[in-house]
Amino acid sequence: MNDSRNAVVLLSGGLDSATCLAIATDAGFNCFALSVSYGQRHNTELEAARQLAEQYGVAQHREIHINLDEIGGSSLTDRNIPVPEGEGDDVSPGIPNTYVPARNTLFLSLALGYAETVSAYDLFIGVNAVDYSGYPDCRPEFIQAFERLAMLATRAGAEKSGNFRIHTPLINMSKAEIIRQGLALDLDYSATISCYQADSQGRACGKCDSCRLRRKGFSDAGVSDPTRYQ
Amino acid sequence: MNDSRNAVVLLSGGLDSATCLAIATDAGFNCFALSVSYGQRHNTELEAARQLAEQYGVAQHREIHINLDEIGGSSLTDRNIPVPEGEGDDVSPGIPNTYVPARNTLFLSLALGYAETVSAYDLFIGVNAVDYSGYPDCRPEFIQAFERLAMLATRAGAEKSGNFRIHTPLINMSKAEIIRQGLALDLDYSATISCYQADSQGRACGKCDSCRLRRKGFSDAGVSDPTRYQ
Repeated sequence: MNDSRNAVVLLSGGLDSATCLAIATDAGFNCFALSVSYGQRHNTELEAARQLAEQYGVAQHREIHINLDEIGGSSLTDRNIPVPEGEGDDVSPGIPNTYVPARNTLFLSLALGYAETVSAYDLFIGVNAVDYSGYPDCRPEFIQAFERLAMLATRAGAEKSGNFRIHTPLINMSKAEIIRQGLALDLDYSATISCYQADSQGRACGKCDSCRLRRKGFSDAGVSDPTRYQ
Repeated sequence: MNDSRNAVVLLSGGLDSATCLAIATDAGFNCFALSVSYGQRHNTELEAARQLAEQYGVAQHREIHINLDEIGGSSLTDRNIPVPEGEGDDVSPGIPNTYVPARNTLFLSLALGYAETVSAYDLFIGVNAVDYSGYPDCRPEFIQAFERLAMLATRAGAEKSGNFRIHTPLINMSKAEIIRQGLALDLDYSATISCYQADSQGRACGKCDSCRLRRKGFSDAGVSDPTRYQ
């Protein structure tokens, strides 16, 4: 076990990142949670992240605010672009308009900066290449490229005082597998919010890609869905 | 000439990034300027960036605000860490405490996201490996690693619709060479601010590493220093 090692965990307040935090905590890491509020519509996620950070007794929880709506390009940050809603369980084909340009590069950059300040070399991010194969920055080759970059980008890398590792424990799991893993670690998913357009009470729309993937995940896992819908 | 191509230029309002904008403009790029305000002490830089963006008639100027002081780790974002002041022309040895953890990774991530939204594949950043050799994220190998990452991180890369290029025209220049290049392009350096701790009127301290490098640059270039000192 790594009970003396610090880790930075990107914590959005959604189902995936909450599972990541549960996994990192279970693995014995001393977790520093980082939440990024970037002008997305579903700001109630941040409140969920705070609750999860408290439940898991993280060493520190930091919140970064950044006005990504200034550069737009995504239905998550630009209110003029509608969030896609579909029928049934299928998500929209191709790269969806919920893709936020260079988002995971940005998130990992922030996690890397935070890691440097708290002497952590382990970063956790809940990317998933199965359900979200449409997002280019959820692919394993992207994560590997960022890991290499981290060694060149940092003081620790330049001084060869540590090796950064980007942990992506969910990358090859289906949503049902993620949920089963979280439940095995006693994660209470009612505290998480996945909806791209949750209302101000944190209730999910049930229609967007994220809601449909989540609902299908609980169904496939054969467990009841604790999500509060509108 | 590339007169129909869009480029994103990171524009801090300092001497280096202003020279970068002059070079990109002269090369015929249609420039989209991006300024990042990250809780640094020298916030008057942003006003300088606005002036420069207007002078150069950029296609668009966007300002990103991000509370990097939340993660700290640098004398530029943490008021409890003093900015180093030295004697003479020498900068402090090693990686200085003005290093902002993962800053250029973050800046390039934002530039990359912006580039995706405006269909630009050329990014300009005024990093310099000569004077700032102490900053790990100013090294050519870091820039090359980011260029590779950009192809994996983006919609354009995934769809193979374009190749990102990170331009670092200043990377091997001395400060004097940068200044001579800018003056050859009629850049008015009095509009730029380099000081790590400029006052609210944008006047430089004359003592920090950045001020000393800049002053020496004008001296070595054999031209008068237009900087307003406190």
